Amino acid sequence: MGQNSKKKTFPLANVYQLLEPGPVVLVSTSHKGIANIMAMSWHMMIEFEPPLVACVISDRNFTFNIIKKTKECVINIPDAELAPKVVGIGNTTGAKVDKFKKFQLKAEPASQVNAPMITECFANLECKVIDMEMTPKYCMFILEVLQAWITTSKKRQRMIHHSGNGNFITDGKKFKLPSKKK
Amino acid sequence: MGQNSKKKTFPLANVYQLLEPGPVVLVSTSHKGIANIMAMSWHMMIEFEPPLVACVISDRNFTFNIIKKTKECVINIPDAELAPKVVGIGNTTGAKVDKFKKFQLKAEPASQVNAPMITECFANLECKVIDMEMTPKYCMFILEVLQAWITTSKKRQRMIHHSGNGNFITDGKKFKLPSKKK
Repeated sequence: MGQNSKKKTFPLANVYQLLEPGPVVLVSTSHKGIANIMAMSWHMMIEFEPPLVACVISDRNFTFNIIKKTKECVINIPDAELAPKVVGIGNTTGAKVDKFKKFQLKAEPASQVNAPMITECFANLECKVIDMEMTPKYCMFILEVLQAWITTSKKRQRMIHHSGNGNFITDGKKFKLPSKKK
Repeated sequence: MGQNSKKKTFPLANVYQLLEPGPVVLVSTSHKGIANIMAMSWHMMIEFEPPLVACVISDRNFTFNIIKKTKECVINIPDAELAPKVVGIGNTTGAKVDKFKKFQLKAEPASQVNAPMITECFANLECKVIDMEMTPKYCMFILEVLQAWITTSKKRQRMIHHSGNGNFITDGKKFKLPSKKK
């Protein structure tokens, strides 16, 4: 993934353009020096700027307590090439496994949070938890994106979308229609 | 869209498989005999069964007050062929226009709610609002899907994903990887 490892900052006002299409993302965290990753599809934009994201992280996930305690994470967006690793990550628990090591992914320091960014992902969104009011009821966290990064590679990055039971759909054709909306 | 107009019920336990990939959806409502439609991309699953969906509907949208009052809607999932109408719907307001008429879409009765289903969409999810605790803060509604419908057509339905400013991505290749997860 050499090409993807170089990143530039991405405008916060455009973060919705990355998450709104509904990609599977990897959520990375760090707690007491131990980094972890989980796969997530239950997220949505809730505000353009500053970009706010709602997400559901089950309390059966190792990441749940880490996020509750550290109040930060990175949302990493993988290209379709990473799909086998994404599924592997989704099927193992950080309570037992160092997922960066097992799935040979590189952790690199973020600028605003202690959670690491996954180098191989084409975009990284540094997030802090700003609202846990709905956490007890729905395991929902509200995140603010503090800093966003995107690969400098010109290669088209294809997001993946999960439709249940290991079934995925990659990004297909792009098209543009005249629109007055963001 | 003759082929798509025939529908069969779709298991509630599988509703997440339709929404998790992040499609643009059409939200239909009815109030005092007037039916309306809006386009929406800010939604996410928050529970498998009964299927619960969180969504954000801006209070600048005509639909916002309708949903607050009637506490029900239908989430309709359009195929890529409907993209021009979806954009048109997103760029007009139900306060001034009868969108079913303007965009030549057929409203058919739902079974559990008064909001109409859009015949031309390949799936329809009848929803009631079950939680408005986060509505004042984030314009967020929590919906429960009461009944789901899907086309009997064997033709592959391609969802559309919005990436901002009228840019869309259609569903591309499907693939399956061994997974222990839902």
